[in-house]
Amino acid sequence: MSPRVHGARGKVFLAGAGPGDPELLTLKVHRLLRESNVVLHDDLVPAEIVALAGPQAMVHNVGKRCGAKKITQPDINVLMVESARRGLQVLRLKSGDPTIFGRLNEEIDALAAAEVEFEVVPGITASAAAAASLGVSMTDRRSSSRVVIVSGHHAHVNGTDEPYNWSALSRNDETVIVYMPGGALEQLSAQLAAAGIAQDTTCAIVSKAGRRDQETHWATLASLRHAPALAPPSILLIGRSLAAAAARSRVAHQVVRPDSDEYVQSLMRLIDFNVFDDLLGKPAERRISQ
Amino acid sequence: MSPRVHGARGKVFLAGAGPGDPELLTLKVHRLLRESNVVLHDDLVPAEIVALAGPQAMVHNVGKRCGAKKITQPDINVLMVESARRGLQVLRLKSGDPTIFGRLNEEIDALAAAEVEFEVVPGITASAAAAASLGVSMTDRRSSSRVVIVSGHHAHVNGTDEPYNWSALSRNDETVIVYMPGGALEQLSAQLAAAGIAQDTTCAIVSKAGRRDQETHWATLASLRHAPALAPPSILLIGRSLAAAAARSRVAHQVVRPDSDEYVQSLMRLIDFNVFDDLLGKPAERRISQ
Repeated sequence: MSPRVHGARGKVFLAGAGPGDPELLTLKVHRLLRESNVVLHDDLVPAEIVALAGPQAMVHNVGKRCGAKKITQPDINVLMVESARRGLQVLRLKSGDPTIFGRLNEEIDALAAAEVEFEVVPGITASAAAAASLGVSMTDRRSSSRVVIVSGHHAHVNGTDEPYNWSALSRNDETVIVYMPGGALEQLSAQLAAAGIAQDTTCAIVSKAGRRDQETHWATLASLRHAPALAPPSILLIGRSLAAAAARSRVAHQVVRPDSDEYVQSLMRLIDFNVFDDLLGKPAERRISQ
Repeated sequence: MSPRVHGARGKVFLAGAGPGDPELLTLKVHRLLRESNVVLHDDLVPAEIVALAGPQAMVHNVGKRCGAKKITQPDINVLMVESARRGLQVLRLKSGDPTIFGRLNEEIDALAAAEVEFEVVPGITASAAAAASLGVSMTDRRSSSRVVIVSGHHAHVNGTDEPYNWSALSRNDETVIVYMPGGALEQLSAQLAAAGIAQDTTCAIVSKAGRRDQETHWATLASLRHAPALAPPSILLIGRSLAAAAARSRVAHQVVRPDSDEYVQSLMRLIDFNVFDDLLGKPAERRISQ
């Protein structure tokens, strides 16, 4: 039951491993890990995920540095192409989601130029993992209708060095996500403040989102420049949708409290829908498995 | 091995089911489906995912309309709270990722007000699934350094009806993602064109991204207004990073071709790294399982 068919051409899966927690792998990537002949993973993919590769797999960390030497992007392209040409199934495993800051198009270009079949498999991106771990939504009907995702040290197009025009970009009803903010916090907070973003806007820096050793630092736009340096990879979230505690007190009148008439009315509606029979009409234990 | 502990308080997992393909569930949501006592899912979560719930689970579609009647958001909040108060583990399963346009904060507010323990579990959002199925990256070092995510029919803040200021927002080096673009294509394409986005910018409308019955319509900004109405839910992607074919021809000189000196140099580097021994030094069959 090898996925390799002798004489057939191989295939490359360009897949996302998610933020690092093995339970945040998709079922599909979990299957591809088990069945692929070659696994080429980034340095950020943790060992416990790489360990899920099948015993037949040739596993290589293609992000690893070896002193001054480093496997280059063209080298990775060649490795994928040569493996597929030998009829092998290749899993190119990237941290997070391959379609966000993953150099995916460059690898697709190489595979397409070599006429190698490929498929992209999405993963949980760092911003989703970070927001989930904070217990906040990136959007909020009441406060945030837009999400802007940028990279702290993005490559500039065609060698130009055009900075983000934050004054044009920024609104108080958006959430800004900065991948790899690095040491740009002071400059960034000054630019956003100059662009009119409120000084008390909630910020969170999440280091190693979705991993056991995750660290979080909460700040406001005003205090962001004093934030401690957290271990990379980190991600910065800025926006009113993060102000969970503030938002809760602000909208408390919208929340149906368990002692209110509205709460009882909801119970009555749920009974109407027969949704609540299981909870109200029968002992819950009857429906619980051992 | 029930997760319910008698006398203990329950817990609510606010989780993402991904775009619809059961293989794009995370391992964690797959586990939560099997072990939760109560599963409350949106209408968009397909039956084959709901069917993965354990036999003990009380499963309710809380997005379903029943004629003019509909379970309201407060009703869903009450159902979660009442279930958790009975010591049950509740899986609140949303389509896609709960932190993007999922009304997550409203449910968190309700749970926090009732002092119910909760945890947010991320999922694959529609834009990642759509980009993956198109075989494109949302970002590209060479052409797109920023992603802007908006909703076609977002709720306006505090009753104001401020439209997106596309002329301030738009740049040719960004990718715009519009969730639920609905019938706004003509207006949207006119606004983006007026904002200076090039008429030949690649657009893709993906209907039911990540499902078996997915449909894709490719367009340019100029032709977007003539796009056919695809079945909801759909998502619109706009940006130069999508112009995969165009990008490939444009950067062809950057791609290492298999007949080039650079390709051979990469092979030599890979041999240096001992990465390539498996492929070049030994018969590949030795490393292949049955």
